[in-house]
Amino acid sequence: MDGQAALRSLQHEYAGMPPVAAMQVRVGDYRDGQLWLSAPLAANVNDKGTAFGGSLTSLMTLAGWGLVALQLRRADIDAEIYVADSQIRYLAPLRDDLHASAGLEDGQSWDEFLRTLAQRGRARVQVRAQVTLPGGDVATTMTGRFVALAKG
Amino acid sequence: MDGQAALRSLQHEYAGMPPVAAMQVRVGDYRDGQLWLSAPLAANVNDKGTAFGGSLTSLMTLAGWGLVALQLRRADIDAEIYVADSQIRYLAPLRDDLHASAGLEDGQSWDEFLRTLAQRGRARVQVRAQVTLPGGDVATTMTGRFVALAKG
Repeated sequence: MDGQAALRSLQHEYAGMPPVAAMQVRVGDYRDGQLWLSAPLAANVNDKGTAFGGSLTSLMTLAGWGLVALQLRRADIDAEIYVADSQIRYLAPLRDDLHASAGLEDGQSWDEFLRTLAQRGRARVQVRAQVTLPGGDVATTMTGRFVALAKG
Repeated sequence: MDGQAALRSLQHEYAGMPPVAAMQVRVGDYRDGQLWLSAPLAANVNDKGTAFGGSLTSLMTLAGWGLVALQLRRADIDAEIYVADSQIRYLAPLRDDLHASAGLEDGQSWDEFLRTLAQRGRARVQVRAQVTLPGGDVATTMTGRFVALAKG
């Protein structure tokens, strides 16, 4: 699957999950190894007029999940992807739309991940995601491990 | 504020947040130091027919936040509550409605938390939350730190 088709397929998959549809998540682009997602503040606002912590975490988790899904689709590999664990830091309140990006954690390799998955039918990878503030600073960060299980 | 009024006030506050209303979160009860929340699977389902990781994390975060809010309301203290950080483990897929509970982490004390908040206008507390499977096993766990800032 080519890159644009993989992004469209990801948007379709997000829209099919009721809680993600409620968040109004949109796939941005994939560049320099980072997948970008966004969601409007209005659908994700808390009692303080800032972005709800659960939405921030959901968007970072979806970005990490989508990042892994993109690599599999571009390699034409059919696998289920699960989040195994995550560590989240909430650094600053966000009073604007949510923009999250996710990329590989330092020292991780897609080649190794795909090779392990092909050999063993199971592989895991560490991802780093963040939500940025309008000025470019960071609102929240996440590191998380994702597991892929080959199908069939 | 008495315990039942505090629970009703919490339900009202959750319902006022659009992403939480979309999850259809309901306040259960507060007993033995644990606050219980629930949400239907249908509004929180992923592409695999199991509970969406973001919804699981949101519900645990809301349970922790609500647990702290309850203590403050019962003590008639007006303060903003923020989640500072959290660590999440996804242990088993959940194919049923979501039931989360949150309580104090071992070694933490509400008395100390409320005293610090009264003295310094700011205090933090560590909470442990989980989502249980129908059989009683654990689907996901969270430990997180919440910060309260006194108002006015």
